[in-house]
Amino acid sequence: MRIALGQINSTVGDLAGNVALCVRFAREAAARGAELIVFPELSITGYPPRDLVEKRSFVQHSEAALRQLAQRTGDLPLSVIAGYVGQSSVPTGKQATNSAAVLRGGEIVLRQNKILLPTYDIFDEARNFVPGDTQTLWHTGQQDVALTICEDAWNDKQFWQHRLYTRDPVDELMQRGATVAISINASPFWLGKRALRLEMFGAMARRHKVPFVVVNQVGGNDQVVFDGSSFVMDAEGRVIAAAASFREDLVIADLDAGSDPASASLAETFAKDEADAVYDALVLGTRDYIRKCGFQQVLIGLSGGIDSSLTAVIALDAVGRENVRGVAMPGPFSSDHSVRDAKDMAERLGIRFDIVPITPAYEEMCRTLAPIFEGRKPDVTEENIQARLRGMTLMSLSNKFGAMVLTTGNKSEIAVGYCTLYGDMCGGLAVISDVPKTLVYELSRVANTRHSNAIPESVFVKPPSAELRPDQKDSDSLPPYHVLDAILRLYVEEFRCVREIADELSLPLDLVSDVAQKVDRNEYKRQQAAPGLKVTSKAFGMGRRFPIAQRYSENE
Amino acid sequence: MRIALGQINSTVGDLAGNVALCVRFAREAAARGAELIVFPELSITGYPPRDLVEKRSFVQHSEAALRQLAQRTGDLPLSVIAGYVGQSSVPTGKQATNSAAVLRGGEIVLRQNKILLPTYDIFDEARNFVPGDTQTLWHTGQQDVALTICEDAWNDKQFWQHRLYTRDPVDELMQRGATVAISINASPFWLGKRALRLEMFGAMARRHKVPFVVVNQVGGNDQVVFDGSSFVMDAEGRVIAAAASFREDLVIADLDAGSDPASASLAETFAKDEADAVYDALVLGTRDYIRKCGFQQVLIGLSGGIDSSLTAVIALDAVGRENVRGVAMPGPFSSDHSVRDAKDMAERLGIRFDIVPITPAYEEMCRTLAPIFEGRKPDVTEENIQARLRGMTLMSLSNKFGAMVLTTGNKSEIAVGYCTLYGDMCGGLAVISDVPKTLVYELSRVANTRHSNAIPESVFVKPPSAELRPDQKDSDSLPPYHVLDAILRLYVEEFRCVREIADELSLPLDLVSDVAQKVDRNEYKRQQAAPGLKVTSKAFGMGRRFPIAQRYSENE
Repeated sequence: MRIALGQINSTVGDLAGNVALCVRFAREAAARGAELIVFPELSITGYPPRDLVEKRSFVQHSEAALRQLAQRTGDLPLSVIAGYVGQSSVPTGKQATNSAAVLRGGEIVLRQNKILLPTYDIFDEARNFVPGDTQTLWHTGQQDVALTICEDAWNDKQFWQHRLYTRDPVDELMQRGATVAISINASPFWLGKRALRLEMFGAMARRHKVPFVVVNQVGGNDQVVFDGSSFVMDAEGRVIAAAASFREDLVIADLDAGSDPASASLAETFAKDEADAVYDALVLGTRDYIRKCGFQQVLIGLSGGIDSSLTAVIALDAVGRENVRGVAMPGPFSSDHSVRDAKDMAERLGIRFDIVPITPAYEEMCRTLAPIFEGRKPDVTEENIQARLRGMTLMSLSNKFGAMVLTTGNKSEIAVGYCTLYGDMCGGLAVISDVPKTLVYELSRVANTRHSNAIPESVFVKPPSAELRPDQKDSDSLPPYHVLDAILRLYVEEFRCVREIADELSLPLDLVSDVAQKVDRNEYKRQQAAPGLKVTSKAFGMGRRFPIAQRYSENE
Repeated sequence: MRIALGQINSTVGDLAGNVALCVRFAREAAARGAELIVFPELSITGYPPRDLVEKRSFVQHSEAALRQLAQRTGDLPLSVIAGYVGQSSVPTGKQATNSAAVLRGGEIVLRQNKILLPTYDIFDEARNFVPGDTQTLWHTGQQDVALTICEDAWNDKQFWQHRLYTRDPVDELMQRGATVAISINASPFWLGKRALRLEMFGAMARRHKVPFVVVNQVGGNDQVVFDGSSFVMDAEGRVIAAAASFREDLVIADLDAGSDPASASLAETFAKDEADAVYDALVLGTRDYIRKCGFQQVLIGLSGGIDSSLTAVIALDAVGRENVRGVAMPGPFSSDHSVRDAKDMAERLGIRFDIVPITPAYEEMCRTLAPIFEGRKPDVTEENIQARLRGMTLMSLSNKFGAMVLTTGNKSEIAVGYCTLYGDMCGGLAVISDVPKTLVYELSRVANTRHSNAIPESVFVKPPSAELRPDQKDSDSLPPYHVLDAILRLYVEEFRCVREIADELSLPLDLVSDVAQKVDRNEYKRQQAAPGLKVTSKAFGMGRRFPIAQRYSENE
């Protein structure tokens, strides 16, 4: 059986565009002799459609788009598997289903609703969909195909120590004699995810002794980046075909062919090069957010620090050097090297660079506020005014020139609130908000490898500082970043308690407790943050939902 | 049977504080001869705890707090029903349950897990909890009690045309011979909700021919306001006891007593006076957000318009006149009457009032940007600079004096994006962000009734304007607010499509389509908005989750 993996980049809600994309891929696959093309989960609507599925018209349009896809591929000598939002036919529950259909000769020959609906982290599927209940094997040629949708294949009894669901839809279909498994996915990227997929599907292929065809979305949709990395495994769990990561791809695989060394070696890269992969994920997520929002150009405040430098290089890879504009905004406490380093890098990258000083406006604001502040000492207020004037400057350029502002805050500082709401947090997309500071340095090395050391070495070695008061350093009130990041990983990503963290890292309880309190206290800032690209197992944003007005203390 | 309704205001995460509150109410109820006190859903943890339940320590602390409550009420001659987050005992699924327990003599005599987990609008329970499966009748004295948790009682087969779940836990317990039903709730307020509760529970009482005891949370937690309005109904669905709306209350009800005219007439108010109820909900939600965040004082930008005027009066009722500070920030295009009206109202209310002009800083910003803007005409950029300077001014006062900024935008303008991100959207709480402009006028009349016409009549009659350019009026580019609000209600709250709305309201398709596009296009602003208080069936914020980078068009 000759199967095409249709690894496409759908745009959420663009039903006509997504159908056209499927048709184009299907024609190409047919021309290359495929008997079947498999598209990812919700290929027709994009993923995640979120509350768009609350609109009755949206569900109807999705059903209509599926019929259109059937018709427009009806003349092709191949079957098509596509994902769509379906109209539920059961009387109770939500109106929509997360479904897959098999199309052939202009007809919808099989429909399958997703049974296991992920409802954790960024996933809200129990909110938006009614779960499927029954399953049908699809008989085609010599094969009995077990067709499942993403989470349906992520609950293997043997693979997972702790399971979220009692049912195992793949196992159920295998019991009925399936000869091949096809899993369509919208499985987001995060650190280690590609290796996990290979490991899990490999274990399932070996357990059930059937080949697995795994097709994944590629592209960024708001906070989520899909890496693609689709593959076919034989019944021993060996990769016999693999699609690229982080770009569209059409791969034709022959189920009966043996192991393919090129594919196997591509798949091997899935399990390593993670700093490169995170970098690529950020480029793709940035490019797609900008493009799918209808923008072309971006603006970045360049402070001469490592965060804004990395963001600028990612932006360049995302939208091209001609579409990136860097702006240095020196203030009263900016060091000489900050503008110099920013300018230096902008020149090396070949991006447009402007200098807009904030000092005059800062002084005017201070004069305006002097009467009402009389008798009060300078404090964080004046620091925030500087950050907010920079935010205002960037937003003014954005308004005037129609470019999107990218924010440059990293995960470590957003976690502990070392950022100014309506200041450096201004922007349309928070590119590196899920990248801990230690990883920022690693990714900056990746950036420099790709762009002949565009980020000056001085940027790597200078001590991190917000430069909002004389001689300010991040280390004045934070532990070193490698310590901070270790604490944050356990506290934010793993929900561990302070005492455990202190024990595990051999750190003073007070230090860990202080960091944890900073994280908790700054929830209000994060809830007004720009959307950020998720690259770890737990990002701030839609995947981590905490109350603001709450008083939980672990020390009760 | 003598039952106390323990209508308390829990704080999310404040386990020790919530237990102490329960103990105090239980002692009082015992002193007044109650045999049983019933507290609301998740009374021990507060509602919604959201992802706090992902912390293993939180679940353990909640279980420990329940045992503490049992011990600390163990000497009282009454039973206690309380809600808590439980540790799941089933091997698959989430770690936590949403549970109720019956406490007596220091022991936990019964535990019941919530079976139906609401997962729509603001509710994320399938994300956070594993559902219960089995139920047990609680036998006490002469009664067999059907104890259910909120949603478990909201799926009556006969009452709802469309049901979300196949199971009806109340019905199941009634089949087993329950003689009284107790429903503990965290049922948020919105327009019409109190009447719906009476109607639904009344229908259930009559159908099952048993009395219903319905206890609800009271208080604000982030975006959600619980109104209380607990009640007891006899087996004919008549109210025989009722607790206040929008404040804590302890009501003792005798199940065998007949109808009580005072309670019945209190309950009658639940079904009307909705403008008053919305006003009260906003006061409570504002007070609790400020208090539970640890603030005392608030700052409001007073423009002399109706939105900021209403917000100021609500704030005064929430935290007292001594804790409200109004700031007028006249700019280059402010009319004379704006500062005059703002000052006039501040004087009538007796709140502190300051004037901080933004014109000097505005002119300085324009000078700074002049070189980079050369050859470009003034546009929305300059309007936004004014709004952002006001936001910065308020945030500076907030930073310096430790007061929370309240934003003053209404639902209509937030819907269509007539607000400036990082400008008038700056603040900790968006008090009236779920109040359509037409309702803003109604609530302002309520405010004036309670505060001897503090809002000057001129504020009601002036045409709405942002005053960001000469002679600007909202009506320059928006339909009249009664038309806009009618469109928004159908489009935003009911997810209706443009064509249907145009037909239903007899409006030109273009007009409706233009409004709908404005709503869609401004999703990015709303995702960075301050949390707002929900008072309608569908508010922006956590209860309405749309993608930003999406291209759905109903006209496909």
